[in-house]
Amino acid sequence: METKTILIKNPIILNPKLDGSVDQYKSSLLIENNKISLINKEIEDSNADYIIDGEGKILMPGLINTHTHLPMVLLRSFADDLNLDSWLNDHIWPMEAHLNSELIYHGSMLGAIEMIKSGTTCFSDMYYYLDDMAKAVDKTGIRAVLSYGMIDLNDSEKREGEFKESISAIKNLHNTCDGRITTMFGPHSIYTTSPELLTRTRKEADKYNVGIHIHMNETKKEIEDSMDLRGLRPFEYLDDLGILSDDIVAAHCVWLSDNEIDLIKKYNVKVSHNPCSNSKLSSGIAPISKLIDNNICVSIGTDGASSNNNLDMFEEMKFAALLQKVNTLNPQVLPASQTFSLATVKGAEALGLNNIGSIEEDKIADLILVDTNTPNFTPNTNACSNIVYSANGSNVNTTICNGEILMENRQILNLNEKEILDNAVDAFNELKRLKTEAE
Amino acid sequence: METKTILIKNPIILNPKLDGSVDQYKSSLLIENNKISLINKEIEDSNADYIIDGEGKILMPGLINTHTHLPMVLLRSFADDLNLDSWLNDHIWPMEAHLNSELIYHGSMLGAIEMIKSGTTCFSDMYYYLDDMAKAVDKTGIRAVLSYGMIDLNDSEKREGEFKESISAIKNLHNTCDGRITTMFGPHSIYTTSPELLTRTRKEADKYNVGIHIHMNETKKEIEDSMDLRGLRPFEYLDDLGILSDDIVAAHCVWLSDNEIDLIKKYNVKVSHNPCSNSKLSSGIAPISKLIDNNICVSIGTDGASSNNNLDMFEEMKFAALLQKVNTLNPQVLPASQTFSLATVKGAEALGLNNIGSIEEDKIADLILVDTNTPNFTPNTNACSNIVYSANGSNVNTTICNGEILMENRQILNLNEKEILDNAVDAFNELKRLKTEAE
Repeated sequence: METKTILIKNPIILNPKLDGSVDQYKSSLLIENNKISLINKEIEDSNADYIIDGEGKILMPGLINTHTHLPMVLLRSFADDLNLDSWLNDHIWPMEAHLNSELIYHGSMLGAIEMIKSGTTCFSDMYYYLDDMAKAVDKTGIRAVLSYGMIDLNDSEKREGEFKESISAIKNLHNTCDGRITTMFGPHSIYTTSPELLTRTRKEADKYNVGIHIHMNETKKEIEDSMDLRGLRPFEYLDDLGILSDDIVAAHCVWLSDNEIDLIKKYNVKVSHNPCSNSKLSSGIAPISKLIDNNICVSIGTDGASSNNNLDMFEEMKFAALLQKVNTLNPQVLPASQTFSLATVKGAEALGLNNIGSIEEDKIADLILVDTNTPNFTPNTNACSNIVYSANGSNVNTTICNGEILMENRQILNLNEKEILDNAVDAFNELKRLKTEAE
Repeated sequence: METKTILIKNPIILNPKLDGSVDQYKSSLLIENNKISLINKEIEDSNADYIIDGEGKILMPGLINTHTHLPMVLLRSFADDLNLDSWLNDHIWPMEAHLNSELIYHGSMLGAIEMIKSGTTCFSDMYYYLDDMAKAVDKTGIRAVLSYGMIDLNDSEKREGEFKESISAIKNLHNTCDGRITTMFGPHSIYTTSPELLTRTRKEADKYNVGIHIHMNETKKEIEDSMDLRGLRPFEYLDDLGILSDDIVAAHCVWLSDNEIDLIKKYNVKVSHNPCSNSKLSSGIAPISKLIDNNICVSIGTDGASSNNNLDMFEEMKFAALLQKVNTLNPQVLPASQTFSLATVKGAEALGLNNIGSIEEDKIADLILVDTNTPNFTPNTNACSNIVYSANGSNVNTTICNGEILMENRQILNLNEKEILDNAVDAFNELKRLKTEAE
């Protein structure tokens, strides 16, 4: 097979580092197949099959969204401004109960193009109908870490079924689509699963050599219930079960005791911070700057669109930084460069994908170009500050994943965007119809 | 002069009400000269000189930004993640000291097109070189309430100069540009002005029949200093001076005692809420839901771009709503419809411009069209929720101010956008040069 090469000429390169700093320099960059093969000021045009003019653009890693539920874009703005209980029990779950394979596919297509258009090239998801989600990931060209959300409610038969689903998804999907799809186990949370499910998850995760994606410490009630039930806080309970390890991505982590922070640090558990969702649902403000001070790996997620209500990681970066500043009354916490690293290189670390998230030779080409010829990027005195504090997803001009151009000049390539939007509207209407029919 | 008419066909109209609710319906709308002359499902094409297809778009009032410092877009992302003292003393003020007439004009042009492109049609500003700002307002077609920021630092000669500037600006600019420009007095704050300046401001404001725009209760230190100096909190001090009235727009209002809330309510003082700036500078979270419960008129502002770092009122709405929810741990406060009203009809009330801010026959045509054929508006189950929680300024397709189309299909009309951006970059470089030269 012929080598395919793309040359990006003269962009401002913004490269996040694991220590929270950012390198900025002007250079050209060559992509060969799915990798960054050369970063150099002088690369001849003749080396490339395709040339992208990067002048006046910022080249940065594609954003990495470490916690979402992609098909929930179908329930965007469907139920808002409600108490968590009513939101879930009266609105979200009754609709989700009628989702099916086809609806999940169309929802995933919508979510994937929303991400691609706002500069996200990789997301970690917990949901159902993983085959259909994978189909959408395959078709749109984005990168995904898929986990099947396991809930057993102490029912051993249900538990068996959940593992069957999970293991089948892992066997069928892990490392497929040229490596764009990997998988994890997804025990939903400690309040929807039994200790048996959790301990078996650890065993199976070790056996299949995949990580674990779980909701942790999202609400105050979750902590109180855990204390009432076991006299242990959620992370203490997982420690007690012996399942904490560095392959766990724990979403939310809003309410943490010092002892739990010590446990997260000790086992190098990865934290996915979801500031918009935690705020919209009034869950609370996670102690992110404290976690970072403890050298804990923090990344950023949007959560599902029904509690956000979009998948724009630029907005999420700004919200994360500003929320920490106002909550600690310290404007120096979560500076722009560090926030930028959480949404890129730290996300890659969290997902065990150390070949993405930064711009270095031999890394995989998951890259985006951001247009700076816009009012909100003028003047571009500090590119990283503009990215974190002034940009939104619509500033993204070009999105490249695994060396493939998925969007150029804001046009999704090789897919009919209008058809995807229309199909999603039809899917939502069908979902409403199924729910009404069942009532 | 001939009547000019614009017909907007079949948009979804989203009309905010003063009680915080929103009307949504589908209709066509006719603009004659600068006013909404007819809202009706059946308006013949032949009635219009120009027709805009509103199908698949939301028609809403242009957003109203009640507190900003427009030319500070030149200092966007210039100094971030700093303590307020260092930010102001070491970075912002040393640069501002070298601003001049021309730089202010180019900064104002940049800020104005940033607003127009993100759906803001009216802003209330406090800054210097008002003639140059007015020139930019005139040229870009936006609506503005301009106030000259008065600072006397207890110096009576300086005070005289400040009033001379203010009164001259009010005489020259109030009700100019077909009514698009009005003015206010702008005593900067209680910590930068003398009691003499404040009491005279009340007298002059009454004489010239214009309002007062002032920074109030932004930081905890401001309260502590006021208590130390006078034994009175800031609003108690203004009450003591006898200047509180319903024509005052008080920006920030982060730290308020119950007694101060009572004073704000008693005198019907208007509050401008600036959540991004208050968060970024770590000032604190204003008790907005409590103010609204007290029937106080709250509106929304972005503050200057150097502490935000953009002028996107969609982002500001989302941030306002989410911040109140997480701060009160109540997801029902500041619901989408109410937040929408703060950024529109309440802004109009705050600025004494009761002929804008909502969509009714005979009101002035300050309107925007938002494209819903995008991933982040799909499905459009709840248009108001999508506007507040999912949209950003880039979703705005068309901006109309005073019956003139300023942007259509995201193209600024009658102005060269690229030239405005280039001039702003040159202005920033010149500002740096002037500062370096003076050192």
